[in-house]
Amino acid sequence: MTATINLNADLGESYGAWEMGSDAALLAIVGSANLACGFHAGDPLVMRRTLRLARDAGVGIGAHPSFPDLQGFGRRPMTLPADELEAILLYQMAALAGMARAEGLAMAHVKPHGALSNMACRDAALAATVARAIKAFDPGLILLAPACSELVHAGQSAGLRVVQEIFADRAYLDDGNLVPRSRPDAMIHGAEAALAHVTAMLAEQALISVNGVRRPTSIGSICVHGDSPEAVATAALLRDGLGRQGYRLVSLVDLDRVI
Amino acid sequence: MTATINLNADLGESYGAWEMGSDAALLAIVGSANLACGFHAGDPLVMRRTLRLARDAGVGIGAHPSFPDLQGFGRRPMTLPADELEAILLYQMAALAGMARAEGLAMAHVKPHGALSNMACRDAALAATVARAIKAFDPGLILLAPACSELVHAGQSAGLRVVQEIFADRAYLDDGNLVPRSRPDAMIHGAEAALAHVTAMLAEQALISVNGVRRPTSIGSICVHGDSPEAVATAALLRDGLGRQGYRLVSLVDLDRVI
Amino acid sequence: MTATINLNADLGESYGAWEMGSDAALLAIVGSANLACGFHAGDPLVMRRTLRLARDAGVGIGAHPSFPDLQGFGRRPMTLPADELEAILLYQMAALAGMARAEGLAMAHVKPHGALSNMACRDAALAATVARAIKAFDPGLILLAPACSELVHAGQSAGLRVVQEIFADRAYLDDGNLVPRSRPDAMIHGAEAALAHVTAMLAEQALISVNGVRRPTSIGSICVHGDSPEAVATAALLRDGLGRQGYRLVSLVDLDRVI
Amino acid sequence: MTATINLNADLGESYGAWEMGSDAALLAIVGSANLACGFHAGDPLVMRRTLRLARDAGVGIGAHPSFPDLQGFGRRPMTLPADELEAILLYQMAALAGMARAEGLAMAHVKPHGALSNMACRDAALAATVARAIKAFDPGLILLAPACSELVHAGQSAGLRVVQEIFADRAYLDDGNLVPRSRPDAMIHGAEAALAHVTAMLAEQALISVNGVRRPTSIGSICVHGDSPEAVATAALLRDGLGRQGYRLVSLVDLDRVI
Repeated sequence: MTATINLNADLGESYGAWEMGSDAALLAIVGSANLACGFHAGDPLVMRRTLRLARDAGVGIGAHPSFPDLQGFGRRPMTLPADELEAILLYQMAALAGMARAEGLAMAHVKPHGALSNMACRDAALAATVARAIKAFDPGLILLAPACSELVHAGQSAGLRVVQEIFADRAYLDDGNLVPRSRPDAMIHGAEAALAHVTAMLAEQALISVNGVRRPTSIGSICVHGDSPEAVATAALLRDGLGRQGYRLVSLVDLDRVI
Repeated sequence: MTATINLNADLGESYGAWEMGSDAALLAIVGSANLACGFHAGDPLVMRRTLRLARDAGVGIGAHPSFPDLQGFGRRPMTLPADELEAILLYQMAALAGMARAEGLAMAHVKPHGALSNMACRDAALAATVARAIKAFDPGLILLAPACSELVHAGQSAGLRVVQEIFADRAYLDDGNLVPRSRPDAMIHGAEAALAHVTAMLAEQALISVNGVRRPTSIGSICVHGDSPEAVATAALLRDGLGRQGYRLVSLVDLDRVI
Repeated sequence: MTATINLNADLGESYGAWEMGSDAALLAIVGSANLACGFHAGDPLVMRRTLRLARDAGVGIGAHPSFPDLQGFGRRPMTLPADELEAILLYQMAALAGMARAEGLAMAHVKPHGALSNMACRDAALAATVARAIKAFDPGLILLAPACSELVHAGQSAGLRVVQEIFADRAYLDDGNLVPRSRPDAMIHGAEAALAHVTAMLAEQALISVNGVRRPTSIGSICVHGDSPEAVATAALLRDGLGRQGYRLVSLVDLDRVI
Repeated sequence: MTATINLNADLGESYGAWEMGSDAALLAIVGSANLACGFHAGDPLVMRRTLRLARDAGVGIGAHPSFPDLQGFGRRPMTLPADELEAILLYQMAALAGMARAEGLAMAHVKPHGALSNMACRDAALAATVARAIKAFDPGLILLAPACSELVHAGQSAGLRVVQEIFADRAYLDDGNLVPRSRPDAMIHGAEAALAHVTAMLAEQALISVNGVRRPTSIGSICVHGDSPEAVATAALLRDGLGRQGYRLVSLVDLDRVI
């Protein structure tokens, strides 16, 4: 039996006259796309166009909701009352899900963006608010979240389906967190090294730290980027390499139920 | 057989720390509420709260989408490319419909707001864009629009159900447009006069101008306001007066199919 | 010789169609007004109107800059890179100062708003960024800040003139911070009690805590509110009471150099 | 005696994480830069950085104010009440002028952006509002406006100094307006053709239409673009070609008083 794996990427992060990302290239590589919902990027026209591109490429789609922060691209930590954050998440999920439906697509997952994700990975109460919002909107949605994070636990506690993702180009600490970008060993350099990094973690179903410490986790998805030609090339090599190793690359909804 | 009629009002037009309107009072009067969707008013938390209030009051709900213009409350004319406007309308309808569903409510109608409505009442191409957006989102939605306007024609041409509304406190010109507010006879003053104005138009199923000119139209709904204690009192008297005259006050979806 | 004291209030916090506050009433009471600069409230037209009202009332004016957060009224904690925050503060100060100059007014002070102020009162690095921005814009500006806070220290270290303010209606902890609103003894209730509270602290030039602990500080200004008819009445009684006690009520620039 | 001429370009039109334009390249070419003020582009940090780049390059700076429309990049026509537009323009000019001053620069001119400029070039009342706002802010500012437009007339009527600009890459109609982009002959293709086009108009101090019709005008500045490598190359060739023809390339404030 063939194991399944998903590649995901953040798409639709242009805004008005400003272009960002390599959406067309990534749609030929990934199985699922996380689409900006207007709060950190992605105005309504960008959202509609990206939905159509994803549909034509046969790529699964999910919401990529954010703190309300266009100027900071959702990367600035904010502290919101729980009911306000819940409503903000509902709004963004609803906007994307409804626009998707109008294009004949079913929104399948949610992946929090930027500072919201970073904070919720460490803060159990915040993670619980995110999970509650997803469940309130649609309990059938998949939560896509960094492996071993508080977001994963909160989603599982809420009874959501959760898919855990790893990063192809980032090194891990012993505690399962990413090596901070300030450290020289934060990044995995080169497409081949990224493939080896991912392959090892998938084979062991564990995060493998810079010190060789294993942290067991189911891994359902790999997050890839399109912020440079090299990033796209790395993503393509990952797809091809995993395919050669016998993995079947699928959208999140088609993952085996081992997630 | 009892004739049905609908009262509608714009609700949920607070924003963050700023309060606006008499939502609680109007929810005890109207059969359908048009809810701001975040582009001229109504942040996500306001939307959720207003949806819950409407649900508890048993009032039907619809989207009240706008040009993107918080500072101008959607009252400033804008010219947008058709595909951009269509996406903006889809986004707002989707956001409200999805949040409504999460509260157990079905969004039943759409009523354009402010400058968007005013412009689309006169501009057939703009009205067609509005109708196209509604149809693309959900062809089962009701378009609530000023009687005899281009919006009405566009909705009917698109195959949408259309309910035509009149204004209780505004006088009409011979051509079916409202008397401009700059004229001394623009407003119908006093609750009793407003009731008489409405009653006459309903009885004849026609707009009746300041000169007595009749313009036949089906009338399914009456728009009331809550921007002053008097406006609320007028709305309440309309409800009571129409009830005494034998009308059955219903939400838009429960109107007889004479609309 | 007569001692001088300043009353200050936050003004110009309407936005577009949304009204807030009792600007006209407060302008008849205070000596200095802190004007919203468009980031948490105060669109350009509100700013211009408020500047003109302040000019006509002979009230001194200052900038009341905020995190960029209209939806949250600047009350939501945010974490911004220092260079970004500095630029955001420069922008707001520049906008208000330039508009003031066009109305024949000289902007005399700066008082951070909401979450920005709360965070900078406790965080020395953030306070230093605020002070640096003010100094970069105009080293002649007065920083108006809560007594004994990190903002005060940062302003003094930067060589700015600093005026320390107290709150008429809030009780203090032994460490100089306000009693949290969650505690039953957080508020000073009633205009007479507020006057007595203020009078005692002015006489001793010290914060006086709920336990009677004195924390010496120069006090140059008293912050009053206009969020209710009672708040305005309290402000008026403070003005009158302090006048009867022989204080001369002045704008910030006319305070004796004991600040 | 050597004739002077100015080259100008729109700069600082990035926003947050989104980059736009070829600021560094253009700053080595133009004499004056029009800087976005936050309403269509240019967040405060972008503004500060661009001001510093302009200062280091010795390039004159002016405000490039816009309708409030980030999503539409200020390109969408809006209709604002005159007092609101005036306040919006004051706000933007004040923000840039104050930030410029903090960097040791004097803002010398104003050039309206996008739809605001297009509309004001044809609408005398709108043009008068723009001129009134500039005069209210600083009567010493130069208005940089398309040759022969209503903006030019309004500025001159208001007593402002006005510099008229032409476009190097656009063809003109007999009435002085630009050939619409929908027509095949709208653009001047190639750097050499653009230089010839400009040289002829400068020599005759007249707009020269596609039909050869001359429309006399003083010409003080040429607008160049940086939206493609070719656009930058065209701008550089213009600068070099005009230099070889004996023109002295200066900032707007250093133009001979023949403007």
